Amino acid sequence: MSQFGFDAAGFDELLLRSAREGGPIEVGEALTHTLEGTAKRLRPVLVHLFGRICAADPDRMLQLALAVEMLHTATLVHDDLIDEAATRRGRPALHRVESPSVALLVGDLYLARCGVHLAQVAEPRATHELFGALATIVRGELLQRRRRFDLDQTEAEYMDTIRRKTASLVQAACVSAVIVAGGGADQAAAARRFGHHAGIAFQVIDDVLDYAAEADVLGKPVGNDIREGTVTLPLILTIADGPAVVGAIEAAKSSGDFSAVIRAVRDGGALRHCEALAADHARLARDALAVFPESAERAQLGDLAASLVSRSR
Amino acid sequence: MSQFGFDAAGFDELLLRSAREGGPIEVGEALTHTLEGTAKRLRPVLVHLFGRICAADPDRMLQLALAVEMLHTATLVHDDLIDEAATRRGRPALHRVESPSVALLVGDLYLARCGVHLAQVAEPRATHELFGALATIVRGELLQRRRRFDLDQTEAEYMDTIRRKTASLVQAACVSAVIVAGGGADQAAAARRFGHHAGIAFQVIDDVLDYAAEADVLGKPVGNDIREGTVTLPLILTIADGPAVVGAIEAAKSSGDFSAVIRAVRDGGALRHCEALAADHARLARDALAVFPESAERAQLGDLAASLVSRSR
Repeated sequence: MSQFGFDAAGFDELLLRSAREGGPIEVGEALTHTLEGTAKRLRPVLVHLFGRICAADPDRMLQLALAVEMLHTATLVHDDLIDEAATRRGRPALHRVESPSVALLVGDLYLARCGVHLAQVAEPRATHELFGALATIVRGELLQRRRRFDLDQTEAEYMDTIRRKTASLVQAACVSAVIVAGGGADQAAAARRFGHHAGIAFQVIDDVLDYAAEADVLGKPVGNDIREGTVTLPLILTIADGPAVVGAIEAAKSSGDFSAVIRAVRDGGALRHCEALAADHARLARDALAVFPESAERAQLGDLAASLVSRSR
Repeated sequence: MSQFGFDAAGFDELLLRSAREGGPIEVGEALTHTLEGTAKRLRPVLVHLFGRICAADPDRMLQLALAVEMLHTATLVHDDLIDEAATRRGRPALHRVESPSVALLVGDLYLARCGVHLAQVAEPRATHELFGALATIVRGELLQRRRRFDLDQTEAEYMDTIRRKTASLVQAACVSAVIVAGGGADQAAAARRFGHHAGIAFQVIDDVLDYAAEADVLGKPVGNDIREGTVTLPLILTIADGPAVVGAIEAAKSSGDFSAVIRAVRDGGALRHCEALAADHARLARDALAVFPESAERAQLGDLAASLVSRSR
């Protein structure tokens, strides 16, 4: 996402340096493994653009972006540990390369570094937004775990879960950026709406790609969600279209072969429906930007929202 | 520790209410299990007393105390998960009662709540102290894990480990309290010294009790540390007194029966040496209080430091 005037390589370097602050620690490749490489840096880019739109001090925005990405990476590392995920971003997951203990501790280290960067930002409302989002994410994760393989889930329940698990932090990143940048209350409210809708659009497409993408584009196996028991919107809609897929899921749970389930989701109309829904949310995100004066950054935020739904299958 | 004018029962209630903020979550008894009961609340009591000594706003000090205890409890929950500990404070450890996933997530929830309380405190230097301490604790934990069953550890290496694992947060609690209370730089430095020495004294005695206490007083089995491979000062000094115990440890690692090791540590002079060392640190803690004007709270802090080394065997 360096197309938005964001120095992604420089940011990666700062993230790594932050994790190493306090001297070397023997965690093998854990830090580079989780902080370098193929990440999209969606949240730091959003902080960067909302900061620019409000003409903020770039150093404080950088500290905020580091805080947000440290928090996000911590939740990824801990989630992969809980889900016993095999891969992340095309690489073996950390808890497998090192150990579950190292994964837990490295996640905690990233949360600590998030707090230290927030201390640099020195804006209690940003601290409140980010750690409030972490609490929301944890609650979303607990909720999702309770609903593993619950095929009666509704679209509304799904939307509530992704609001917690994904939109909450995207939203916190956007609204914090505007607050730290000294934007007004109406601009902060607009950034909150933008972040909410962009986060929802992003996650719906992520859940589409889990069924529709090629494995090498995705960086993990296709159909990973249902294998782990996570029931997402493509499946909810496919079940609503006809209950045949429920039998396929029950069979797959015994055999371990989910290909018939994946095929059923791909062949029905669910993925198109999800893409339309995501596009609606991307439009709502874009609309929220109207309160900001016209500028290159406002246009870029709009493009970014649109790009969330046009990610490659 | 309600003898220091600290309302322990009221504090426990607030901790629980904080963890539940955002509505009920289905984690069984996880919250009450980890937040209620027999905890000493050493760090909140220190925040309370340093706040009183500097005539601070009690509400802000309470938020700081909640932040500190949330952080501390998070590290306990995650440590027990890593160590696969059977018990904590006389109860089965959370990851056993619920599940490893719930323990991980509840620990993360407590770190989130720590951040939210720090946002209420609204003092970036306190945020920096507490999350800086968390990073130090994680690094100490990684160090300690690398040294499991390393019988060549020196006293200096042990002191470095407990400085990171225990003293860092006690120190952060004390110095943050003085900063938030508006104390001067000399008072903050004194609180830092007090916290460091009190934390060392506390941990040395904890490590003595692991060998010397009765199991029912300790709330966990005697000799727990060496069973987990954690080499503490009592053992380091016993090894220095004569290498016979090394053979006993090797034998115990195969048989699982550590009673001969525990007896060797109890029967030598190591425990008395440790108690003398802890008493020295408690005195240094007390001495650091000289910069504060004479007051009931200063006397109580001195008493508290002394009480750390007179805990029941």
